[in-house]
Amino acid sequence: MERGELLKRIDNIKKEFATISMKEITNSKNNFLKIRKYQCILKNSQILNREKIEKGGSDGSAVVIVALLENNEAIIIVQPRVFSKSQVGVEIPAGYIDYGETPLQAAKRELKEETGYVAKKWVHLKEFYQDQGISGALNHCYLALNCVHKYSQELDKDEYINYLTCSFDDLCFLVDDGIINDANGIIAIMEAKRFLGR
Amino acid sequence: MERGELLKRIDNIKKEFATISMKEITNSKNNFLKIRKYQCILKNSQILNREKIEKGGSDGSAVVIVALLENNEAIIIVQPRVFSKSQVGVEIPAGYIDYGETPLQAAKRELKEETGYVAKKWVHLKEFYQDQGISGALNHCYLALNCVHKYSQELDKDEYINYLTCSFDDLCFLVDDGIINDANGIIAIMEAKRFLGR
Repeated sequence: MERGELLKRIDNIKKEFATISMKEITNSKNNFLKIRKYQCILKNSQILNREKIEKGGSDGSAVVIVALLENNEAIIIVQPRVFSKSQVGVEIPAGYIDYGETPLQAAKRELKEETGYVAKKWVHLKEFYQDQGISGALNHCYLALNCVHKYSQELDKDEYINYLTCSFDDLCFLVDDGIINDANGIIAIMEAKRFLGR
Repeated sequence: MERGELLKRIDNIKKEFATISMKEITNSKNNFLKIRKYQCILKNSQILNREKIEKGGSDGSAVVIVALLENNEAIIIVQPRVFSKSQVGVEIPAGYIDYGETPLQAAKRELKEETGYVAKKWVHLKEFYQDQGISGALNHCYLALNCVHKYSQELDKDEYINYLTCSFDDLCFLVDDGIINDANGIIAIMEAKRFLGR
């Protein structure tokens, strides 16, 4: 697909996923997010109060995947991101690590669920803290090579994801141009680029 | 300072800032973090429930600063990060944008408060969403050039920061080696490296 056609398809998905109404809900039952407060004493006797965010009962560590097909095209996903200016995120496959999963197991599961692709080779690229002032979330970036489409998408209730493929050059262009603009995607793609010597 | 000496100093600050006790507090008054829940309707009629984290009454957008002195040494800061494995973060200057501030004003203020340095030239490198599934935080990375030490640190209550300077090569080494391991620092330093053609 030409870059112009790629951008047109992204725009069409963005239109479909635009938010037309957003209403605050006041009940606090079954929250996914939870805040915990701690008082900490440091070795040098200083005392700190800090608040921590938990996601679904865990620290919210996630995996992020640069997935390349056998022809070296990359998989991008487009999904509603109601709190960002554009309301829609152009991203790469990613998701939270479930309880009891290793990061690699989570990466394989998320790639399969979000896109139906399965990779022949996995490379661990980097790990990083997403927001360490308020969270223990430690995210893992992977490069998934020789991906083949084997399954249908299996999305959670409340999850809407469209996926596309594009050249690796176009993937890098999407980052440089600010179209892919989330920390997870930027770091994983920069690291994949470096690993591949591109 | 030699790289060996730099790593020794970082380790000494890490020892000082280690957490020796962490106790959960159950009162929920005066929280810095707040969760809001929304029901959103998309243009394609799909309905999504999403939760959003707010920090101190705002979306928590922050600035991150790669600050270089006239001799091209870089400023790093070391501070307690009680939720990370090492309990201490090796980072670069950063902080939240206050209400009514532009990102550049926030960057100048944070660099001055955290380190006492003032820069002669500022370059906006990149902006990115820190955690767009649960937040509208849009962070701005800056390169601050020709920094001169003019003021004393002015830290908030509950803020403990030591700063050091090191060569730009050692700054990049700290990222590659995983010693600087937060999303903000990684992205800002990668972008500064690219901007400077290093």
